[in-house]
Amino acid sequence: MVKLIALYKQPEDKEAFDEHYFNTHTPITKKIPGLREMKVTRIVGSPMGKSDYYLLCEMYYDNHDALKQAMKTAEGKASGKDVMNFAGDIVSLMIGEEIDDE
Amino acid sequence: MVKLIALYKQPEDKEAFDEHYFNTHTPITKKIPGLREMKVTRIVGSPMGKSDYYLLCEMYYDNHDALKQAMKTAEGKASGKDVMNFAGDIVSLMIGEEIDDE
Repeated sequence: MVKLIALYKQPEDKEAFDEHYFNTHTPITKKIPGLREMKVTRIVGSPMGKSDYYLLCEMYYDNHDALKQAMKTAEGKASGKDVMNFAGDIVSLMIGEEIDDE
Repeated sequence: MVKLIALYKQPEDKEAFDEHYFNTHTPITKKIPGLREMKVTRIVGSPMGKSDYYLLCEMYYDNHDALKQAMKTAEGKASGKDVMNFAGDIVSLMIGEEIDDE
């Protein structure tokens, strides 16, 4: 499986972030064709105490080609545009390949 | 589920990193009592091309208390000490709570 990972740093206004993330961004993203699963993790700290990070989202696709195709769809573009609008300054996007356990 | 997340930036020497990570660090970490699953993701880029990040590791525990207890064990301390030795300058550790889908 291939996953697109979005890692968000602490937003200035957490309430406004959550409101937009869960009520607007998530529904847009879930419509992307080819998306197999979307897993959201709330970052609550670090072993040392606080964390600079706030939220991690993992979006699973069958393979790199499926992810590429998905990003070209209207829904994929809408999700990308939305994330850049509301969190462009605090989000890092990564493409990852899960390594199967032995 | 609660997970401890280790996110590594690009190491200077990828070959040396991989050698230590997979042959030394992973076996130490897998011995930690209470660890339910360890999922490693290789970061291969970003939608914009390259990524500053290299590897993401997610370590699952039953709950926050199990994670806390695990970090106090000899195995947990050995894993923490090892990661700080070989990658202290490029790793970010986060504690996350997966948000269940509706």
